[in-house]
Amino acid sequence: MVKTVGIVGLGLIGGSLARRLVQREVEVIAWNHTERPYAAAREDGITCVDSLEDLAIARPEILFLCNPLKAMPEMLEQLSSVLDRDATTLSDVGSVKGMVRQQVEAAGLGDCYVGAHPMAGTEFSGFAASDPAIYDDALWAVSVDDTTGYQRFLKVATLITGVLENRIIVLDDETHDCAAAMISHTPHVVSTALINELSESPDRNIAAALAAGSWRDMTRVALTDPNRTRAMVEEDADNVEVLLRDLANRLTAFADELHNHDDAALTRFFEAGQPFRDYKARERELNESGNAHQFDEFGKSGESDKDERIAISIPESGWQHTFLDSARRGEHIIRFIQPWQVEVETRSKV
Amino acid sequence: MVKTVGIVGLGLIGGSLARRLVQREVEVIAWNHTERPYAAAREDGITCVDSLEDLAIARPEILFLCNPLKAMPEMLEQLSSVLDRDATTLSDVGSVKGMVRQQVEAAGLGDCYVGAHPMAGTEFSGFAASDPAIYDDALWAVSVDDTTGYQRFLKVATLITGVLENRIIVLDDETHDCAAAMISHTPHVVSTALINELSESPDRNIAAALAAGSWRDMTRVALTDPNRTRAMVEEDADNVEVLLRDLANRLTAFADELHNHDDAALTRFFEAGQPFRDYKARERELNESGNAHQFDEFGKSGESDKDERIAISIPESGWQHTFLDSARRGEHIIRFIQPWQVEVETRSKV
Repeated sequence: MVKTVGIVGLGLIGGSLARRLVQREVEVIAWNHTERPYAAAREDGITCVDSLEDLAIARPEILFLCNPLKAMPEMLEQLSSVLDRDATTLSDVGSVKGMVRQQVEAAGLGDCYVGAHPMAGTEFSGFAASDPAIYDDALWAVSVDDTTGYQRFLKVATLITGVLENRIIVLDDETHDCAAAMISHTPHVVSTALINELSESPDRNIAAALAAGSWRDMTRVALTDPNRTRAMVEEDADNVEVLLRDLANRLTAFADELHNHDDAALTRFFEAGQPFRDYKARERELNESGNAHQFDEFGKSGESDKDERIAISIPESGWQHTFLDSARRGEHIIRFIQPWQVEVETRSKV
Repeated sequence: MVKTVGIVGLGLIGGSLARRLVQREVEVIAWNHTERPYAAAREDGITCVDSLEDLAIARPEILFLCNPLKAMPEMLEQLSSVLDRDATTLSDVGSVKGMVRQQVEAAGLGDCYVGAHPMAGTEFSGFAASDPAIYDDALWAVSVDDTTGYQRFLKVATLITGVLENRIIVLDDETHDCAAAMISHTPHVVSTALINELSESPDRNIAAALAAGSWRDMTRVALTDPNRTRAMVEEDADNVEVLLRDLANRLTAFADELHNHDDAALTRFFEAGQPFRDYKARERELNESGNAHQFDEFGKSGESDKDERIAISIPESGWQHTFLDSARRGEHIIRFIQPWQVEVETRSKV
């Protein structure tokens, strides 16, 4: 098991991770670029250092970059001359993976890098808002490529499943970033386009007066900081572009079908998303039946009839693809039974 | 003041309206087509009758059609031969206004009709789910055309502002239906297109696993009954079609700008909705400062610096346009000072 972890950036995500790791008896060494919440962090048992160099020379087994994405090139450049690549595996918690890997490789650190993205967060930011509980039962995407060393991968993966008791799916960067574009970045653009439509209408006050729950939900994300949204979209621009064009085509096709009273096509449109409706219904059912199963042992859970848990063997060659296929089937890795065998759980699938 | 009201359809909206009117000492006579919740309704003080004819011949001053839109032609056909047009003003609570007026006119009842659409409801349906509180501080759109008689209009409008203590905006059907397409019907199609996109992706389980708050909000309305969504969209098809094409153009233009790294255009895109963001921020402020003002008298409210209340004179000729201009300015009518003078309030505007 990993005993020392380095954290760059004690914001909401990094601070919460550091605190959770300390709770799990991992030694955590952290550095924060500006506005150092060191007094509070030290009270929580985190060792704080004065420079990124100090953090690197402490040789943590894993170093998580939890800084903002825009600071990534600067952090990587500093690390490139001081990081002990044999001792330390480099990881991050960024919400896009392709761009980060490019920057990591540009800094000559590709050989010790394993990407990660925890599905955790709140609308707040900063160490003061940090809370280890955001990692309760969290799912992480771990991103690898064909050159990723399996031992490096195992270090990060078993920290997440073993120490943090979280779940993982293992993806290549492109699959991660395309999925993120679908469920977050593109919807943010759509939401913004909706409020633009209203704002530019001469009847905007009438529309706003008639607005109810559906409008409120569809436009909530457009109310968040537009600069942050813009940065997020530009970091994943290629995938967002493709999905926006696809969505525009879907909306235009629907407009045509509506115009032509094309009954069969309209029926298909409203049926096409049924797999996702069914998935959400099953997810609600599972939530309502409680989460008591999540700390139960394999095979002993009273809720085990609701989850499918199976063991999967991982081949030494092409392990990346075995993991990707598993993720595509809706499986989450919950445990490494041995280095080349994992236990996966399927809670619900689309 | 109106003393008798007829209600067709004791569902969530009609049932809640009937119960609220009884609370305000109006005599309410109701008829329900099927599954009659008459025992419960009678306990609440509602007089229930056996047929639509019985309801018509009771000559309520206003008769609200609260039946589903698809039953409208059948209801109107039955009413056409029995409604006393002199005694009764016909209204409805339908969520589209143009289609209903066409049906009313086809039944020869146009001369006694004033449309209405209360912004009230929950995700539930049926009399058992009814609750007079859904009309607390509700806003109604009242829809008129150039032939609407002012006395007919006044009957409905003063019931809403006086008896129900609700607010109104007065619109033509087209303005109402276009605004409804913007804030509800079109977003429903967009939300459905998003879940279709995911459902048809080979990586749908990965995308679903990564989904967080933004996806949940943007797709919630796509999880509701797709048949009801389809009906709603088809009832307002012309407006939805126009808005979908416009939105598709916006998304395509944004994709182009992203592709071309068009900094100025991207900046414009993220700034265009700022009026709506500012409006929502001001609305939140007003909500946080409490709603204590809403029952205060004109000019005496401690919160009056937060609301603008003014009196507006209504001309006998072209009153429809005076009201429409007021609605466009973001004003809500809260009181008829005299038949040709109203008090309006501006809480927040885009």
